[in-house]
Amino acid sequence: MLTRKIDPAVRNKLMDELPQFCGTENYYRHALCKNLVYTDGVKFLVDMRADVLHFMRSHPGLVAIDEELFDLLSSWFDIGNLDLHRISWGSPAALLEKLISYEAVHEIRSWNDLRNRLDSDRRCYAFFHPRMPEEPLIFVEIALGQDLADNIHHLLDEAAPALDPRDAKVAIFYSISNTQMGLRGVSIGGFLIKRVVEQLILDFPKLKTFATLSPIPEFGNWLDAQLREGDARLIAKSDHAKLCAAGKMPEPVEAFRTLMRGEWQKDPGASAALQPVLTRLVARYLVLEKDKDRPVDPVARFHLGNGARIERINWLADISPRGLKQSAGLMVNYLYKLSDIEENHEAYAREGRVIVSNSVKQLL
Amino acid sequence: MLTRKIDPAVRNKLMDELPQFCGTENYYRHALCKNLVYTDGVKFLVDMRADVLHFMRSHPGLVAIDEELFDLLSSWFDIGNLDLHRISWGSPAALLEKLISYEAVHEIRSWNDLRNRLDSDRRCYAFFHPRMPEEPLIFVEIALGQDLADNIHHLLDEAAPALDPRDAKVAIFYSISNTQMGLRGVSIGGFLIKRVVEQLILDFPKLKTFATLSPIPEFGNWLDAQLREGDARLIAKSDHAKLCAAGKMPEPVEAFRTLMRGEWQKDPGASAALQPVLTRLVARYLVLEKDKDRPVDPVARFHLGNGARIERINWLADISPRGLKQSAGLMVNYLYKLSDIEENHEAYAREGRVIVSNSVKQLL
Repeated sequence: MLTRKIDPAVRNKLMDELPQFCGTENYYRHALCKNLVYTDGVKFLVDMRADVLHFMRSHPGLVAIDEELFDLLSSWFDIGNLDLHRISWGSPAALLEKLISYEAVHEIRSWNDLRNRLDSDRRCYAFFHPRMPEEPLIFVEIALGQDLADNIHHLLDEAAPALDPRDAKVAIFYSISNTQMGLRGVSIGGFLIKRVVEQLILDFPKLKTFATLSPIPEFGNWLDAQLREGDARLIAKSDHAKLCAAGKMPEPVEAFRTLMRGEWQKDPGASAALQPVLTRLVARYLVLEKDKDRPVDPVARFHLGNGARIERINWLADISPRGLKQSAGLMVNYLYKLSDIEENHEAYAREGRVIVSNSVKQLL
Repeated sequence: MLTRKIDPAVRNKLMDELPQFCGTENYYRHALCKNLVYTDGVKFLVDMRADVLHFMRSHPGLVAIDEELFDLLSSWFDIGNLDLHRISWGSPAALLEKLISYEAVHEIRSWNDLRNRLDSDRRCYAFFHPRMPEEPLIFVEIALGQDLADNIHHLLDEAAPALDPRDAKVAIFYSISNTQMGLRGVSIGGFLIKRVVEQLILDFPKLKTFATLSPIPEFGNWLDAQLREGDARLIAKSDHAKLCAAGKMPEPVEAFRTLMRGEWQKDPGASAALQPVLTRLVARYLVLEKDKDRPVDPVARFHLGNGARIERINWLADISPRGLKQSAGLMVNYLYKLSDIEENHEAYAREGRVIVSNSVKQLL
C-alpha cells in the first residue's frame, strides 16, 4: 500500500483552496487523508491533478499544489512500478472501449476499426499501474509488415488482409496515446517504446526495423504563419515555375497560398506542384526550427529524445481532415535503429543534435 | 480427455459418404481418428454434425451418421459436463462479438446495444463445454426490474437509465439463443434457466418473480392460414361491429384481412379494433392449438415443458418488422413460479396440460 504523505503545509493550503472547485467540502480531504490506502486512491489523485491543471490558469495559487502532486505522481509512476500488458481482441470490452475513447492520434471510428488494429499482424501494448488496474496509462499501436509504412490509410484499411506476423521484418509504431491528463509531464512514453521493442524482438526474431509513422502536429500552424509572412525564401527557385503554373498566379508565394486554400490533395496538378515545396518545408521545420535548442514539433522532440532519427517524409500519407490541417497531409517515419539509439539519444540530450537520414538531409 | 469412439461400422459408412461434401478426403477421417484428443476435437464434431444436418435432406444415407453423432454429442453435452459462466462487459471482446452474431431473438444492433444489455441492471449467462471454452453453447439475457415487462422496445431502450439491481423484484428472461447448429435436439435450455434462477436468487435476495418476455414465433403463419380459410368463428361476435367500422367492410373477416394488410400498428383506430381480436387469437393459438397433444408454438412448448405458465399477453409489445411478421406485434410473459414449476412440468409432461393464468383463461 502507498504510504507517502503529502506535506501538511501544502495539504492545508489545498484544503483552503480546493473546495470551491468541487461539490462537497470533503472531496479532497477524503482523498488525501483516507482514500490513498484504497485501490482507487491513486486514480483519485491522478484525477485530482487533472482538475488542478484545469483550474490552474485562473487560480495561480494552485501551482504549488500542482508541483507537489507532480512530484508525488512522478515517484509513484516511476517506470519500475509499471506493468506492461498486451491488449488484444481477447481483452475485456470494458478495457477496449477505453482505447476507443483515449486514442489521441488516429481516431478509432468503430469496433470493427478497433478489431482490425488488434488483428494477428498488429500489436497493442499499454503500461498499467498496479493500483489503477483498469486504466491503461499510455498505449501504443503497432503494425507488423514487410516495409516501412508510408500511408496511414493503407495501414488502417479494414479490408486489407492480415499478414503472417512470423514473416514480419518491420514493426511500425503508428499511434501512441497518453490517457491520463493528471500525469502530464510524467514521461513514460520513451520507456514504453523501449520495452515494447524488447518484447517484439523476443516474439518475432525476424524483425529488423523499428520505426514510426507519425504526424507532424504543429506543422500546419507553423506553415500558416510562414504563409502570412510571405517570405519568398519559403520556396526553392527550382519550384517557382511549376507552382505559379498550377496556382495560376505570377508570384510563387501567392500561388502557394492559393493552392493551399483549395482541395489540392484531390487535384493531381496542384498536388504535383506542391509536393516538392511542402516536403522540403517539413524537413526544414522538423530539423531546423528550434525552440530553446530543441525542435519545435512535439512529436519530433519525443522521438528524437528517445534516440530515433528522422528517416523519411511521406507525401499524401494522411489526408484525413485532421491530417491535412495539422500536417498538410504528410507524415514522418522516425527510425529506431537499435545500434544507434543510445548514441543518438546522448547527442540529442547533450547538444540537441537532430539525427537525419541522407534522403531527408538532401531536402534541407 | 475424451476417449469414446464412434462405432467402426458407422465410421466406415461415414468415410464412404462424407468426402463428397468437403474439400479433402481426410477431412472427417482426421476428425474422428485423431482430432478428438485435441482441445478443438469436440468443436470439430459439433460442426461436423451441423454439416450432416445440412446435407441430410438431399442425402438420406446421412441419417444414420446423424443419429450416431446425436447420441455421442448428447452424452458429451450432458448438463453435468457444462459450466455456467456470467458474461459481462468485462468479458473478452472476442467472446462478446459471438453474442452479437449468435443472438437469435432480438438482433443486437451495435456494440452500444450490447453494452446496454450487459449494464448493471442486466445479466447474461451462458453454458460452456470445457473442451469448447471459446464457444458459448446457449445464452440467456435477463433484465432486472420492478415490474413484469410488457414491451421489448422499452426493455432494450439504450437511453433508459439503469436501475439499482439490488432493489430488483422481477427478473425478465427476454432472450435465449442456441448457438450451435450441430447441437440441435440436445436440450440444455431448460437447465440453463434453472441454473440461472438459482444464481440470481443468491445474488439478489429481493427477487420474487421470474418470468420471460417472449415472442410467439409461429403465430403469424398460423394466423395467415386462418385468414385464408376465413372461418367466421375467428372473431368473437362482440368484436364484429368495431372491426367492420375500422376496416370499412361489411363482413368482419374481410375487415380483419384488410386491416392486417395495412400498417395497423401505427393507426390508433385500426389498432384499437384489432387489439381484442388478436389478443384472443394468441391465447387460443397458444393454449388450444396442438400438435400431438403439445402446443404448436415452439417457444410455448419450451417454457411450458420447463414448468412455466402462460401469464400475460402483451399488446404492441414488439413492433419491429420481425415482431409484426412472426407475432403480430404481441409478446407473452411465461411465469416461472418457483413453488409450482415441478408440478406444472409434471402435468405437462404426463398429459400435456397447459397451465394458464386467470387473465389469459378469460380470453379463451
